[in-house]
Amino acid sequence: MKEYSLYYWPGIQGRGEFVRLALEAAGASYRDVARESEGGGLEALIRVLKAKGMEHPPFAPPVLKAGNLLIGQTANILMFLGGRHGLAPSDEAGRLWANQLQLTMADLIGEVHDTHHPIASGLYYEDQLEEAKRRAADFLKARLPKFLNYFERVLAMNKAGSAFLIGDRLTYPDLSLYQIVSGLRYAFPKAMAALEKQLPLTVALHDRVMALPNIAAYLASPRRVPFNQEGIFRHYPELDSVGGK
Amino acid sequence: MKEYSLYYWPGIQGRGEFVRLALEAAGASYRDVARESEGGGLEALIRVLKAKGMEHPPFAPPVLKAGNLLIGQTANILMFLGGRHGLAPSDEAGRLWANQLQLTMADLIGEVHDTHHPIASGLYYEDQLEEAKRRAADFLKARLPKFLNYFERVLAMNKAGSAFLIGDRLTYPDLSLYQIVSGLRYAFPKAMAALEKQLPLTVALHDRVMALPNIAAYLASPRRVPFNQEGIFRHYPELDSVGGK
Repeated sequence: MKEYSLYYWPGIQGRGEFVRLALEAAGASYRDVARESEGGGLEALIRVLKAKGMEHPPFAPPVLKAGNLLIGQTANILMFLGGRHGLAPSDEAGRLWANQLQLTMADLIGEVHDTHHPIASGLYYEDQLEEAKRRAADFLKARLPKFLNYFERVLAMNKAGSAFLIGDRLTYPDLSLYQIVSGLRYAFPKAMAALEKQLPLTVALHDRVMALPNIAAYLASPRRVPFNQEGIFRHYPELDSVGGK
Repeated sequence: MKEYSLYYWPGIQGRGEFVRLALEAAGASYRDVARESEGGGLEALIRVLKAKGMEHPPFAPPVLKAGNLLIGQTANILMFLGGRHGLAPSDEAGRLWANQLQLTMADLIGEVHDTHHPIASGLYYEDQLEEAKRRAADFLKARLPKFLNYFERVLAMNKAGSAFLIGDRLTYPDLSLYQIVSGLRYAFPKAMAALEKQLPLTVALHDRVMALPNIAAYLASPRRVPFNQEGIFRHYPELDSVGGK
């Protein structure tokens, strides 16, 4: 009997990956239900999303089942897991700060998604290509530097040192910032190569998280879905440029 | 000495309005700093955003100061206020559920914003008008009904009755859903007139919140900024249509 069941689209990292990283860092036992061939699959995910008579129906995946709790919204799931597994500060001010950082990352992740889908999630990329080029250029020129410089500044201003975003040990926003850097390198290699010169603390955090034994083992395992062209981070060379030019 | 200081752009409701509604419903005393002429103004807001040496620098407004705490991100501020003022459930499952609903509303609010700014927040509406028409049409046809039907379903499935989203009393997501319906009616009167026929519980909740003594007094006061064409909810007739057609 596993401790948790994660319900998320099979075949992509997507928002589910932020939850997977927290589960893996915590060494928690979990089912990745929609990726299991027996008793799982997409059908099991759809069943959870459409179930009637459920007390707390989720709007969209990821959804985490923990005992009798069914929890939706990535940042909400991470707040829950952070508290249970020592991946969040224990005081109120620290918990709020962790959640604040995570929600700012959620805003960034939404904007990454919209670089390739600026008009409609339900349309193909090719049907919004011209708009995607305009949006991605603005994103790389104005928005992405603003977000990344912000997290670099948070690391620089951490009074307990710049090894982690909060205090002197790992919390769940560190895991998410690792994933963001990793995804941005896949999606926008040119833009990131230029931006990273100004982000030494963020790059060092990325490397530190990647080297954690539980995370290194996970990344080398088949449990880690590779980046691909169906997720949030997609590599379209025509959208990648230095400073949006 | 007021209990709280809210820092938000003067002149618009924006995301700050969700915080104002919680403060008003709680009967809390607060400064709306950037709207004050003495000791406030836009300068005071910029000062908080750019302050050096701050422990928890915010990325963007709204920001709430509560004693020594400086809290950013709307849903995070609401979670904090909800716990302090009896506007959230007291058990863990209930608190997570309130946060989950609020984050789903935050997703909807982001999509509302992008109907008039699908390419870049930093560009004028007129410079992304054609893209806005495409995005708004998809939003009204596919996304908005999905979100609103979801909240209607949450009300219908509430085992304690359908008067509120959670349990049998007011919580902060109720206030936010009121604001969303109110803003959508301003922005998309035609689309909403058609959609509301299928949303009796949501409309009843809107009316119930609006009639709460503290909220009614607030809405009639000069503290409530009127809807206008600078906020998240903007009325552009060319973007409003029934079913996106």
